[in-house]
Amino acid sequence: MSNRNTYFTAGPAALYPKFEEFLQDFVDQQLGSISHRSQKFKDIYRFTDEQLRTLLNIPAESALMFTGTASEIWERIVLNCTELETFHLVNGSFSKKFSQYAEALGRHIHVFEKPLGEGFSYSEIEVPEYAELICTTQNETSTGVQTREADIHKLKRGNASKLVAVDMVSSAPIPELDLSLVDTAFFSVQKSFGLPAGLGVWIANETCLQKAEEIGQSKSIGAHHRLPELWAQSKEYQTPATPNVMGIYLLGRVAEDMNKKGIELIRKETERKAKRLYDYFEQKAGFSLFVEKPEHRSKTVAVINTPGASSEIISALKAKGLIVGSGYGKNKDSQIRIANFIATGEEDIEKLLEACDSL
Amino acid sequence: MSNRNTYFTAGPAALYPKFEEFLQDFVDQQLGSISHRSQKFKDIYRFTDEQLRTLLNIPAESALMFTGTASEIWERIVLNCTELETFHLVNGSFSKKFSQYAEALGRHIHVFEKPLGEGFSYSEIEVPEYAELICTTQNETSTGVQTREADIHKLKRGNASKLVAVDMVSSAPIPELDLSLVDTAFFSVQKSFGLPAGLGVWIANETCLQKAEEIGQSKSIGAHHRLPELWAQSKEYQTPATPNVMGIYLLGRVAEDMNKKGIELIRKETERKAKRLYDYFEQKAGFSLFVEKPEHRSKTVAVINTPGASSEIISALKAKGLIVGSGYGKNKDSQIRIANFIATGEEDIEKLLEACDSL
Repeated sequence: MSNRNTYFTAGPAALYPKFEEFLQDFVDQQLGSISHRSQKFKDIYRFTDEQLRTLLNIPAESALMFTGTASEIWERIVLNCTELETFHLVNGSFSKKFSQYAEALGRHIHVFEKPLGEGFSYSEIEVPEYAELICTTQNETSTGVQTREADIHKLKRGNASKLVAVDMVSSAPIPELDLSLVDTAFFSVQKSFGLPAGLGVWIANETCLQKAEEIGQSKSIGAHHRLPELWAQSKEYQTPATPNVMGIYLLGRVAEDMNKKGIELIRKETERKAKRLYDYFEQKAGFSLFVEKPEHRSKTVAVINTPGASSEIISALKAKGLIVGSGYGKNKDSQIRIANFIATGEEDIEKLLEACDSL
Repeated sequence: MSNRNTYFTAGPAALYPKFEEFLQDFVDQQLGSISHRSQKFKDIYRFTDEQLRTLLNIPAESALMFTGTASEIWERIVLNCTELETFHLVNGSFSKKFSQYAEALGRHIHVFEKPLGEGFSYSEIEVPEYAELICTTQNETSTGVQTREADIHKLKRGNASKLVAVDMVSSAPIPELDLSLVDTAFFSVQKSFGLPAGLGVWIANETCLQKAEEIGQSKSIGAHHRLPELWAQSKEYQTPATPNVMGIYLLGRVAEDMNKKGIELIRKETERKAKRLYDYFEQKAGFSLFVEKPEHRSKTVAVINTPGASSEIISALKAKGLIVGSGYGKNKDSQIRIANFIATGEEDIEKLLEACDSL
């Protein structure tokens, strides 16, 4: 264990501290061999479903479904929840990809785009009249910009007849998002849940289902992982195709462990760690925070402008077993990105900052 | 280990004997945390790619790509390789689902359907003139029926201008399929590769790519895992979205281990085990083989008609730690299905048949 690295990367990321224990339980119980049509699998799905509903406060009537990745869910939402027009808040690579998926599926897309590093406030958002779906990215992994929960809630209240989708890929379960208000949300397991990649989680309400059934009468809503079939199967703790059983099992165990600690405590710890990171780099000579407005700074992915090439800083930290990410896209070599996920303890942050002292 | 069950189920199935060793290597190297944009990940993809090319004799110019499941590949093939019409050889649940996917995507489907338990021979297949794609299922998991490689090869030679897709989900790498002849093939890892579910493998040639690019100029070919992007990324040992890194790594290790033994030897062992199973149940009083024609009997999934309810037989074997599957769909309680995958050794087959002696 001692010569292992400590990962601060934004996904795949540091694994959950008890990951190996849970993985060993999976192996010992031979869960890799059980049928996905067996009662044993249904019990696993039900357990994960219950733990996530508690953790994220998901309403009973909404469905909780599994896909291969979160990117797949972008496509499923556009196919199943829109017929013609979508509206996208874009301020980075991932929110942009969501809009590109909609365009590739033949939708007329409306885009409100902000420069990298900037965020959205409710008051400045004008939703196009004919947009059926408002696509928001609660945490833009590429730039470390968040959209506050209150702004997303206002967006839905101010546009009650439209569907609102929330990409929580790199922030769930930290945001206190009202899932009885927004229509659909989704995330991956290789970020704040600290698990190996290969599983997407999709939450959708009955309005999404109705829309899919309505559209499906006159237009293709796809073939694989269509909302009506995924939904019906999920209510029986089943999946249309053979799912990532290992991922579903591990996610349930991690969510249970988080529930034992309590999400309130986890959120407070995350905020404390984020504050420590931002305070440190705000004061450190030569460094600065990429996101200027404090209210738009992500709690889970901190993006820091570096003096000189970030690759040198990354190498210096790597030599000490500390792995931080580079900037994204054109900011690759002028920024570092530090994930502040749940698997990263306060002691890990301190170890990192101590190493940064000598940079 | 001693109180573990031995699985003979058709997927999820018995895990590869060295699965735990390979999984431990994955954990020890912290591969669950590495970036999927890193050189380390590219090296893993390249290794798995090379091992699978050797094992399955995949031409250098074809692409080897990863998805979440094989079902997803049904959709991707229809979207990327057909514009209007498809033709399907249907003789069970999975070949039927492939046709239903095409229909859900708005294609005009032509279906040549056979009763459950029957297979296809080249001479009886009439391919509709305007079908762009011929969809075959080399091994129909639900009924234990195979389509011989020679029939598939003739089908392509006799219809050179059409694309031929081969579902090898529950048979790869056993069939000696000529991948320089057929256009696209795919499989899952939770069958004969003995790995946990959550990864699909898609092989496609340049004709498929050209077709996707051609169709894409006038029609949507989907947004997620589109062939042109998957293809381009695969040639750099990259993926468009975060993939199941663990699955890709484990698959490479398993394929390497199979290559060390040699695919010819593995194929011979598989045939010997299949013969042993079929001979046994053909002679056992009250039991009979579901697939009448020997040449259509699957080498990897044996379906056996049982005297009385199969659930009682399944329970009796389960009490001895031997897990066999039920029949599929309407044959659920009148058949057992026994997987004869690579992870199942000759000694496992003997143990099973010894237990069957006292049924």
